[in-house]
Amino acid sequence: MASGSGDRKIPIDPVITPFSIFLWGGRDKFDRRRDIHDALAKNPIFSKTAVVLPSIARKDAWTRAALQARELIRLKLEHGWSHTAFREAIRLTDNMLPVQPQFRIFMSNLDRQMSDEQKALWIPKAERFEIFGSYAQTELGHGSNVRDLETTATFDREHDEFIINSPTLSSTKYWIGTTGVWATHSIVVAKLLIDRKNYGNHLFLTQIRDLDTQRLMPGVEIYELGPKAFQGMLGTDNGAMQFHNVRIPRSQMLARNAQVLSDGTYVEPKNQKHSYGSMVTVRAIMAEITGWDLLKAVAVCYHYTSFRKQFRKDRSRETETTVIDYASVKQRLIPLLAKGTALVLVGQNVTRGYDAYTINNLKTGDFSQLEDFHLQTVGAKVYSTEITSHGVETCRIACGGHGYHALSGFGRMYANAVNAVTYEGDNYVIGQQVPRAIMKHFKNRTEGSLPSLSYLARIRDGSESSSPSIQPEGDWLKPEVQQWALEKRLAHMVSAHIEDTADGRDTSYTCHALTMAHSDFVYWKGFRELLQTLEQERPAYLEQVTSLFHVFALSILHNPHHPSLAQALPLPFAQQRSLRAAHDAAVENLAANHLAGIIEAYGFTEYEMDSALARADKTPYEALFEEGAKRSEMSGNSMSHLWPMMVNTRQMWKRIEGARCQEGNMQAKL
Amino acid sequence: MASGSGDRKIPIDPVITPFSIFLWGGRDKFDRRRDIHDALAKNPIFSKTAVVLPSIARKDAWTRAALQARELIRLKLEHGWSHTAFREAIRLTDNMLPVQPQFRIFMSNLDRQMSDEQKALWIPKAERFEIFGSYAQTELGHGSNVRDLETTATFDREHDEFIINSPTLSSTKYWIGTTGVWATHSIVVAKLLIDRKNYGNHLFLTQIRDLDTQRLMPGVEIYELGPKAFQGMLGTDNGAMQFHNVRIPRSQMLARNAQVLSDGTYVEPKNQKHSYGSMVTVRAIMAEITGWDLLKAVAVCYHYTSFRKQFRKDRSRETETTVIDYASVKQRLIPLLAKGTALVLVGQNVTRGYDAYTINNLKTGDFSQLEDFHLQTVGAKVYSTEITSHGVETCRIACGGHGYHALSGFGRMYANAVNAVTYEGDNYVIGQQVPRAIMKHFKNRTEGSLPSLSYLARIRDGSESSSPSIQPEGDWLKPEVQQWALEKRLAHMVSAHIEDTADGRDTSYTCHALTMAHSDFVYWKGFRELLQTLEQERPAYLEQVTSLFHVFALSILHNPHHPSLAQALPLPFAQQRSLRAAHDAAVENLAANHLAGIIEAYGFTEYEMDSALARADKTPYEALFEEGAKRSEMSGNSMSHLWPMMVNTRQMWKRIEGARCQEGNMQAKL
Repeated sequence: MASGSGDRKIPIDPVITPFSIFLWGGRDKFDRRRDIHDALAKNPIFSKTAVVLPSIARKDAWTRAALQARELIRLKLEHGWSHTAFREAIRLTDNMLPVQPQFRIFMSNLDRQMSDEQKALWIPKAERFEIFGSYAQTELGHGSNVRDLETTATFDREHDEFIINSPTLSSTKYWIGTTGVWATHSIVVAKLLIDRKNYGNHLFLTQIRDLDTQRLMPGVEIYELGPKAFQGMLGTDNGAMQFHNVRIPRSQMLARNAQVLSDGTYVEPKNQKHSYGSMVTVRAIMAEITGWDLLKAVAVCYHYTSFRKQFRKDRSRETETTVIDYASVKQRLIPLLAKGTALVLVGQNVTRGYDAYTINNLKTGDFSQLEDFHLQTVGAKVYSTEITSHGVETCRIACGGHGYHALSGFGRMYANAVNAVTYEGDNYVIGQQVPRAIMKHFKNRTEGSLPSLSYLARIRDGSESSSPSIQPEGDWLKPEVQQWALEKRLAHMVSAHIEDTADGRDTSYTCHALTMAHSDFVYWKGFRELLQTLEQERPAYLEQVTSLFHVFALSILHNPHHPSLAQALPLPFAQQRSLRAAHDAAVENLAANHLAGIIEAYGFTEYEMDSALARADKTPYEALFEEGAKRSEMSGNSMSHLWPMMVNTRQMWKRIEGARCQEGNMQAKL
Repeated sequence: MASGSGDRKIPIDPVITPFSIFLWGGRDKFDRRRDIHDALAKNPIFSKTAVVLPSIARKDAWTRAALQARELIRLKLEHGWSHTAFREAIRLTDNMLPVQPQFRIFMSNLDRQMSDEQKALWIPKAERFEIFGSYAQTELGHGSNVRDLETTATFDREHDEFIINSPTLSSTKYWIGTTGVWATHSIVVAKLLIDRKNYGNHLFLTQIRDLDTQRLMPGVEIYELGPKAFQGMLGTDNGAMQFHNVRIPRSQMLARNAQVLSDGTYVEPKNQKHSYGSMVTVRAIMAEITGWDLLKAVAVCYHYTSFRKQFRKDRSRETETTVIDYASVKQRLIPLLAKGTALVLVGQNVTRGYDAYTINNLKTGDFSQLEDFHLQTVGAKVYSTEITSHGVETCRIACGGHGYHALSGFGRMYANAVNAVTYEGDNYVIGQQVPRAIMKHFKNRTEGSLPSLSYLARIRDGSESSSPSIQPEGDWLKPEVQQWALEKRLAHMVSAHIEDTADGRDTSYTCHALTMAHSDFVYWKGFRELLQTLEQERPAYLEQVTSLFHVFALSILHNPHHPSLAQALPLPFAQQRSLRAAHDAAVENLAANHLAGIIEAYGFTEYEMDSALARADKTPYEALFEEGAKRSEMSGNSMSHLWPMMVNTRQMWKRIEGARCQEGNMQAKL
């Protein structure tokens, strides 16, 4: 038995190389990662091995998360961590913490939707955690369809207050993160009513718990939501919340845009697009971080499948074949490495662009690019969450039976990743915005205004239609050939969508594949542009990134996310064959020449991966035996109180047969 | 707020109609279902609402399962339930029970692999639960590759015993169901060694726990395995087991086939195929029951999506649209209803055929059909587990955010269904047996001997190659057109596979899609034959079954399980369009005319579905609020012991700022 993990090098601390700095998004980000990693991995409160979360009661798992939240608050306040660092530290704990919304959706709403006076009062309170914030939008009866939310905020002129109410069961705020136990203040989305007139949804900062006692405020009825599917999101206390004539001062309606004056006059917002803002922020963050989720799963799968041996490829071989050398593993795993890389690299670009825009926009009030960012982040959210959740589960399955052990970590990763497919907008619902925008701009010939739709012009002028004569294998690596194929596929799908819409068909199903195809193109383009920049700089890792790009580009063509994407690009068999050959060659090339180097450059640590299949000082078998089995809370004598019951059960037949005999005897006597 | 569930009729007890008897596989099966349902749904020990399993510690959830196992044993012994009824009752509990292997893999091995003398001794013990059985094959280091298992059973002539040993860490028996706490006897797969000669794997009935105390037997080292991914299989105590010179009498080697005489003479088995047997049995059972898992998920999704309203299809409408009326829901859900039906109906045929064969084979010793059943059940296992696991998760996602609540039940369903993708043989590994058989019989022109490969002859004589001129929509409903398309697709994939094999390529990845395409055809053919029988009998439900068949056939063509299946059937756009139109029309027709009737005929009860989204007396919103939130173990004052910690955390900034000021003052003074 191997006593160590051989040449599978699994770092304890982040390892720094120029390539890893590039992949992690630059020196600043890399250093932040290292600092956070240091602070958490070496602090026993954040230990990932001290407690086996999937074994304990949910309440106990949440308690642990609440104590971690407290410790993280201490760290932030004492060391002056940035909001970003705080957010990233929460992610590193993996199971979410109750304080998670504080610097995501809570703060971003205060920031974007409050007037300057309001900000001066509330932001310091939020920043120093004097209040714990949440964001209450979703109701039992309405998710994506925000317009039909039922909660009301009625203006009471006499007391200069709003009265918040939940008029129906279906208006119960539901799924509200951190609200079940933790939060003291919630930004409540409610219909503004003044003199019975409905002014639509506005945001109201509502105190829900007493700051000194944590008891519910009068009229606020809250329940924690109960467990989530797959044991997901253990650290979040979601809430179900109803309001019964809850009064808040007029000054707590978020008033950067619309306002209500003391006499009840409604002052309209200058800009209608402002409401996009907070969703765009959250989705921009999601676009990048889901890529990291996928890459961690890929890394665990890599470490395990390059350890595990099974069968012999060639029967004459003495030793068994390492499973990563089988096409069945390689062809599942390596495209996911390339896709994860694309999600992260292109996702970082989106976040960077949006951050720059935001800073500028807060100064100038110029919202002109917001629609493009909205579109980009919707597409990115749908694309990245689909690929990641599906990819994480593919990694687990590629590890075979042992992937099903909770300590492999894949279950936790999937539970937390797949959640994003239906939250912050169900993918099938929000995904419809992409085709809608495509249609609008195609019709109006306005795609020039939106960088992410630039390909529409090429579709319109028909330049995509001339089929290049593709030579075996090599040609598929040419970007112009890839672009031709991606545009041809999109052109076909867009035309079909135009036709369907004209025919009055319900396109809510087919939209999804179109959104994926659109995003394939957007990500391909983003990755390609990034590679072009690198080609000029010629860093030492150019070859690795090029190899990742090839696998990404060819996998979205050869093995698209949905069968209808394959149907939309019906290549002649000869071209299909050459595409497949090019794809397989790109996968083989990456596997043979760059895989180990790329995994090393990402350098996920033992702490980051949190998997028994990837321990620095133990093989997966040692870890599965020692951590999985020997430490099981049901091992040894721990269930011995049930032993007499089992022994007794095995003797039950005697009693039952005995009783039957007796009965028989009795009947015989009668 | 609606106080009831309107026209969503969710039964408390199984409802009987001719259609439901047909779907459930005949009167006997239906009656058994009803009896078991009665026994469990009305017995508080089996209540599914008394305890929220995903909230409690795993140990407590298992304890509950152990007590249920005891009660089920009592029911079986007292009421003389059949083994099948017992097995089905375990399934109805949903989370598996420790006693689960008793009448599946344990008994089926005693039955098939023991000599008559051995059976006379052991089967009564197993039947009356005097011993608790398990089956120990998988090791830490080997799953599908049974040949390389490392556990040894060395014959000791002097004592007429075998000595069982685990020579390495990787030889630890791992994942062994029911072995962590419960089992007293295990059928151990080990290499037989006689005078240092290795005779390969044989089965050894080994006592692992004392019958009177439940303590481990000398030399047996067992640990329970720890939690599983997604909180799956809560009722199973899997074990990790090592043997250190464990002695068993020679009479406990299972000796129906091979035998060891007291002088150490090895008597060869008459038939080499005998070892297939137990896997074939288990997989045959799996093929049918996974279909039921899918159908239950479909039913829950149906009940929820026909209650939930969101947005308006037509903006002028007053009320919102029921979400099942959107193509995005319909096109995901209805093909799954058809696929689930195909899995069950065709799966029942496989089990029936195999059962008949087994009875006959035990008498005659004729193994000639075993290869075909092996092939059928491998294909069915891969096909049914892939479609079911993917389908259950699709149902959850189609329910949007509320599907992520643990009480929706989808999480539990997925956790338990997806397990089957990697157990009893990893799908990517065992799936390779199908293409291997195709190749062998295609080369040898022996497909005539295997009914499930009959299509190879048509491929060989080229009769599939002439393309029919397909008329819009209607023609795709013709079975001969469907068969043409399925065979054309298969022909292309088989040819590619032949070419790849000839080129020495590693086909372990592409095999999987070929297995799915092969199974598409096998299930299509099976469903079609069944429909032909019905067409002669003309029952009242013929139209419904026909509608299900159309959706099944067109969905496997239009929306295949893997993109490469779409590539292998590159239809001209006109044919693609007509296929899609036919598919959509079939889905619409089923949705509009038969959906409610089919769901009613399946008639899953509230107890069977076990979902807050499908309660007989509550709407999903009422159930999510009352059962999910109001009953949450973290609601109310249950976390009040943590309130002072939270209050204190919100005041932390004062202390830290205070300390900083003091420090500043100190420095100023210095």
